[in-house]
Amino acid sequence: MMKAAVLGYGTIGSGVVEILEKKKDLITAETGQEVSVKYVLDLRDFPGDPVERILVHDFNIILNDPEVGLVIETMGGTGKAYEFVKAALLAGKHACTSNKALVAKYGSELLAIAREKNLNFQFEASVGGGIPIIRPLYSCLTAGNVTEITGILNGTTNFMLTKMDREGRAYEDVLKEAQALGYAERDPSADVEGHDACRKIAILASIALGQFVDYEDIETRGITDITKADMAYAKEMGLSIKLLASCKVEDGKVYASVSPKLLREGHPLYTVSGVFNAVFVRGDMTGDLMFYGSGAGKLPTASAVVADVVEITKNSDRCVYPGWRDEKLELSANTGAVNQYFVRFSAGDKEVEKQALEAFGTEEITVLRQEPGFAFLTARMTRGEYEEKAAAFPQICQMIPVQE
Amino acid sequence: MMKAAVLGYGTIGSGVVEILEKKKDLITAETGQEVSVKYVLDLRDFPGDPVERILVHDFNIILNDPEVGLVIETMGGTGKAYEFVKAALLAGKHACTSNKALVAKYGSELLAIAREKNLNFQFEASVGGGIPIIRPLYSCLTAGNVTEITGILNGTTNFMLTKMDREGRAYEDVLKEAQALGYAERDPSADVEGHDACRKIAILASIALGQFVDYEDIETRGITDITKADMAYAKEMGLSIKLLASCKVEDGKVYASVSPKLLREGHPLYTVSGVFNAVFVRGDMTGDLMFYGSGAGKLPTASAVVADVVEITKNSDRCVYPGWRDEKLELSANTGAVNQYFVRFSAGDKEVEKQALEAFGTEEITVLRQEPGFAFLTARMTRGEYEEKAAAFPQICQMIPVQE
Repeated sequence: MMKAAVLGYGTIGSGVVEILEKKKDLITAETGQEVSVKYVLDLRDFPGDPVERILVHDFNIILNDPEVGLVIETMGGTGKAYEFVKAALLAGKHACTSNKALVAKYGSELLAIAREKNLNFQFEASVGGGIPIIRPLYSCLTAGNVTEITGILNGTTNFMLTKMDREGRAYEDVLKEAQALGYAERDPSADVEGHDACRKIAILASIALGQFVDYEDIETRGITDITKADMAYAKEMGLSIKLLASCKVEDGKVYASVSPKLLREGHPLYTVSGVFNAVFVRGDMTGDLMFYGSGAGKLPTASAVVADVVEITKNSDRCVYPGWRDEKLELSANTGAVNQYFVRFSAGDKEVEKQALEAFGTEEITVLRQEPGFAFLTARMTRGEYEEKAAAFPQICQMIPVQE
Repeated sequence: MMKAAVLGYGTIGSGVVEILEKKKDLITAETGQEVSVKYVLDLRDFPGDPVERILVHDFNIILNDPEVGLVIETMGGTGKAYEFVKAALLAGKHACTSNKALVAKYGSELLAIAREKNLNFQFEASVGGGIPIIRPLYSCLTAGNVTEITGILNGTTNFMLTKMDREGRAYEDVLKEAQALGYAERDPSADVEGHDACRKIAILASIALGQFVDYEDIETRGITDITKADMAYAKEMGLSIKLLASCKVEDGKVYASVSPKLLREGHPLYTVSGVFNAVFVRGDMTGDLMFYGSGAGKLPTASAVVADVVEITKNSDRCVYPGWRDEKLELSANTGAVNQYFVRFSAGDKEVEKQALEAFGTEEITVLRQEPGFAFLTARMTRGEYEEKAAAFPQICQMIPVQE
């Protein structure tokens, strides 16, 4: 018998309680024992909800109950969530979480405590919602090195970009729709400015490369400056604009970024649309892989949490360690990363166009014109080289790297 | 220290030896111990190959060496491979394999022995080459029930269908190219008649549903009757013909088949082209997922085998059981499965067309004509209903179900 406490009875927490109840027989068959929720912690009351009889407002009741072997954190944030998970691990209880902010900021410390105490700290649901990605990274892709991991990790922005692309609508317009549908918050900055995707790629990169990648080191750009004009040009070029969170190893250097990027048709991420998420992984032994699914939503995310509960229950006598070295991995400056770039000029006559092509293009390139401006894809060059050249052209109003 | 023996020094076996050597440091870091290959078994000699010094021709040397803790089977087939793996497990050695035929036929028995002996028998590489799919199924998708698992599981046929689609070429023509490129065998029947995909979906279904699915019960149709005309019609309808291996649960009934099917744009498998493989999984809790990657090839497949080696080494004191009940799952007759159908008439005037539409179509349907014949998509109906109606039309020369 594994007795668990669920911290937070919001969307994910209530989904976890629901699945643990609805799938009780399946989970008992899988783990060989009954998994039951002894407490749910929330500041609020839920009059009439069946959870009422196990609801507590004081975490110490959970912490001090030796029967509780597992704490399931779905509160979010890095305040109380951190305090409670750390206290639970120190008290000898396993923990799992759906909280990317917690894992990105305190993952190294919490994993170290779990290992020290021979406990599990797991967080499959913190990235990619219902998509199995963290466990496959550390239990299936172990025969070689990951050289790139690139994800569409934020469903809200992917929904918005898909709408802009397919319906030719403006950013502000699709943001309002995303808010009306509940996909975007009233303050949408965590999504649209890329902070959510940044924490997620930091977690994936830490596991894939086996060393702590600090999200604060990752250059992060959102989608707030993507316009109808950019979308129209991209479409004409047969390219798709996606918000990509990426970490690449090239010649021993590690580059990481969150940025809108242009994808070519044929790239596995090209067709990932709407609120779906996907993670592309390139390994030196496996070749190219992609994991695709619902990146958010109550039941998909809660099911990933419950999968952690099942694994922890099956391995309650040992620490299954996702494994990253705590020593921080030093990222290289993105000025050294090589790409092609989509460049848009707000204005410029044929003479400006000629100068621009001389500066940016060494290969045959196609220029598209939407008067009074134009746009094209540059030759491959480092970001540093691009920026040097771009300084001479004040008419440049947009630059988006092309994903290779 | 884990000492292993590799059975078979063909493409996969030599890839395994190569990766275990090349990635020694990584694997030691992951498992906390050195993994070394003590023997390679093959009937052939390999003069000049470094493997020469550990090559043996007699399995008993491996079986009787108490230092060997793990047998890695990459020989293929169900003769010696079965005999050796079973003997190894009975002798207290862990085993892993890339051999789908072995797992589909003897998986239940070998898993039972492994469990009985507290050993591991793993087979990640047996389906989908380098794609992590078996371990995610039993370690990540445990919080709910899988209601459908559908895969493009044979790279050879997917390569051929992609060529036929994109280049308008005939079956015989692309088969020759696949043979010239080494994708297809001189006797291509295992691939083109669907037998390879059949064994793979049987393994996936057994794990996903937790109960033994016998490949011999799965209705299997290959791609040998797919013509240029079918491809041309499908293209005009915006559909893509793929060889799909599928298992679905509907109203408590389980249907399984290997068959060419038509996919609509927007289905995650629609864009999977060339030699790539992909597995689509629908869960009642997770929603829709897809796993995509290289389904074959020396290093991708060998890397999946080595990932098993790593997991087995990490869990050498316990049996990590993929978990299916041995009692055979009874499949329902596919005559009860509901689909739309692509139907092609080799000939038929407007009167025949009118009769056909009256028989097959209750919804608005579009008929495409390529004189002297025509084709259309029927309304949704069971296969049984379809066959009853089709009996009245001897002009029907092709039927392909539409994937829902």
